[in-house]
Amino acid sequence: MKHCTILLMLLVAFGASAQKFDLAKTPPMGWNSWNTFACNIDEKLIRETAEHMVSSGMRDAGYVYVNIDDCWHGERDSLGFIQPDPVRFPSGMKALADYVHSLGLKLGIYSDAGTKTCAGYPGSRGYEYQDALTYARWGIDYLKYDWCNTDSLNPAEAYKTMRDAIYAAGRPMVLSICEWGDNEPWRWGKEIGHLWRTTGDIHLCWDCELGFGTWSKWGVLNILDKQEGLRKYAGPGHWNDPDMLQVGNGLTAAQDRAHFSLWAMLAAPLMAGNDIRSMSDQTREILTNREVIAINQDELGIQCYRMLSEGQLQVFVKPLANNEVAILFLNRGDTALNLDFDWKKFTVNDGMTGRYHDFNQQTFKLRDLWEKAEAGTTAAPLKKMLPAHDVLMLRLTAM
Amino acid sequence: MKHCTILLMLLVAFGASAQKFDLAKTPPMGWNSWNTFACNIDEKLIRETAEHMVSSGMRDAGYVYVNIDDCWHGERDSLGFIQPDPVRFPSGMKALADYVHSLGLKLGIYSDAGTKTCAGYPGSRGYEYQDALTYARWGIDYLKYDWCNTDSLNPAEAYKTMRDAIYAAGRPMVLSICEWGDNEPWRWGKEIGHLWRTTGDIHLCWDCELGFGTWSKWGVLNILDKQEGLRKYAGPGHWNDPDMLQVGNGLTAAQDRAHFSLWAMLAAPLMAGNDIRSMSDQTREILTNREVIAINQDELGIQCYRMLSEGQLQVFVKPLANNEVAILFLNRGDTALNLDFDWKKFTVNDGMTGRYHDFNQQTFKLRDLWEKAEAGTTAAPLKKMLPAHDVLMLRLTAM
Repeated sequence: MKHCTILLMLLVAFGASAQKFDLAKTPPMGWNSWNTFACNIDEKLIRETAEHMVSSGMRDAGYVYVNIDDCWHGERDSLGFIQPDPVRFPSGMKALADYVHSLGLKLGIYSDAGTKTCAGYPGSRGYEYQDALTYARWGIDYLKYDWCNTDSLNPAEAYKTMRDAIYAAGRPMVLSICEWGDNEPWRWGKEIGHLWRTTGDIHLCWDCELGFGTWSKWGVLNILDKQEGLRKYAGPGHWNDPDMLQVGNGLTAAQDRAHFSLWAMLAAPLMAGNDIRSMSDQTREILTNREVIAINQDELGIQCYRMLSEGQLQVFVKPLANNEVAILFLNRGDTALNLDFDWKKFTVNDGMTGRYHDFNQQTFKLRDLWEKAEAGTTAAPLKKMLPAHDVLMLRLTAM
Repeated sequence: MKHCTILLMLLVAFGASAQKFDLAKTPPMGWNSWNTFACNIDEKLIRETAEHMVSSGMRDAGYVYVNIDDCWHGERDSLGFIQPDPVRFPSGMKALADYVHSLGLKLGIYSDAGTKTCAGYPGSRGYEYQDALTYARWGIDYLKYDWCNTDSLNPAEAYKTMRDAIYAAGRPMVLSICEWGDNEPWRWGKEIGHLWRTTGDIHLCWDCELGFGTWSKWGVLNILDKQEGLRKYAGPGHWNDPDMLQVGNGLTAAQDRAHFSLWAMLAAPLMAGNDIRSMSDQTREILTNREVIAINQDELGIQCYRMLSEGQLQVFVKPLANNEVAILFLNRGDTALNLDFDWKKFTVNDGMTGRYHDFNQQTFKLRDLWEKAEAGTTAAPLKKMLPAHDVLMLRLTAM
């Protein structure tokens, strides 16, 4: 009887996965227009961004989705089919998708479960099947589906309607549940979408003055702290989404590194939110650090847990495939701190996954993923100066 | 301040009414295919029924809606637009609507807020705007919108989506909220639809063995008793719907009279549910009793209240325009009873409407609406034998 139940659960899990076109087995990576451009978008920006995704090395580092956020919309035609803004997207979405695809990239679009999008453009409520069919015909690969102007809709049901509309349209699309966390999408999102937001929008700040709930100003640390308790909901095909990246938009270099490293550790979708066309070498180097990206894209898809929180220091652990481990040391404080970390006093002991490593029994060699250099082993205590708002990110491989 | 509030309420009421195309100012009247034919429907049945609505005098008595219930559906086309079953409705819905309109009647159709209708045909979930547009293009005048296969949709929001889709389609349609009462549609239906069901489906019985909730077998008396407390929610443009009529389907003549009289008193939509093509003279005479219908269609649109419940006798009062009153004596029991009703001991005292008549101060003449004859006045006690399951229905006019 018990075996039957487990078999049934496996079948259900497999069915659901196949149903979702088996997308996003690792956290999706790409770019989104909102953080830098908000409503100032047009097809020229999207085309140029796509071109620079290739020339900058972003594509080859894994960033394949080029995602148009709010404000692309024109009006619905007489049959109710949505049209792009004819001034901003005069060539139409199909041509844009064809071009983006020709560069080896994928195109994402945005809509909303309510009557209007957050910026006031036509929402998909009551038009779900028409909209999904339209996106499929255009060649869209990814839908970010927002939650403005939804009155008292049941969130899980509203997202299920769009999921089923996408299935009916027949084209594989990643479905990004942009519900902001108020209705705990981690509890119901797994069978519906591939990722779900956990907070309100990210703002360009390290540690923001918080406001009220969804409408708070969420900075890097605020979002980080909100991930507590959510890791068990994430895994291949269904991810917690701490929102898009602010890397390159004005944080300090240390903060950008920390932000990117944390998102990698969180197994978060990595959606660049900067102007790819004009990014600095420093920004490009952060976003395309393949060793950090590899931590994010590890095939096990396990979100990190916090091993230690002591004063301004926090230490995060992410179990990786092949018994490797990523460990991140974060200095949350405004002053440098001197790390003196005796591995022997700690164990990797992850109740969720059963992963256990005792540094007294086994020695790991360390690789510093930002220095891109070997950094000793766990046999000796780790001693290092960690600047304010910076991180030390290590990959541990058993010797 | 108080006057401003009242003015504002009037403006709001007027706005809402105008928004709903100002339909169903009195309870809608017509015919529906379900009670007799269930899924055994086709365009021939609808056309013949429409013809007999005219020849039988039903139309001229006020029954203008010819409503197709579940099972008319074919499949959706490649753009998602629903088609009628090509075998059952080979001429298409537009041609059928044109024919029905040519007879001075209106055509109603059926859909469902969920993924499938109750009989398993395509539901409108996620297709609301397309479906409303399709109905409008066909020339549909009335939509019965059911509640099967709705998972955890929020009912008010699901019906609002279809309401807004109908508004967008631009053709006036009565919206019948067929939610069965579990989510108390009387609390939210007024601004959304023109009528809402209060119970599960009516069955062909006087007093059924009840089951569980929605899936109970609801007979005439069971539905009657469920109206307790609901009258305050009804009025012009927004009606409690105790479901369609079973008159002519197999109840006794007394029960048919009582059922019809009660629905008239309840200001209920009067939707015949029998085979109009072959109805008996007795059935036709009940359904087309213009004096009873006039009580139902009274312009004030006030649902009756129960003045008295004593043993097997119940007495219902419906305030009418021009200070007239309808009073119904119902014998719920299985044996005849001898009415001996001393008007002087009772007052019409309706707290909801403020209507007050003291029979000691004012005498009314009585008209028996089934005998179609004068029946004395309220000056003397009413003495009459009332057979089992039968009614005495009086119209009172001040002398």
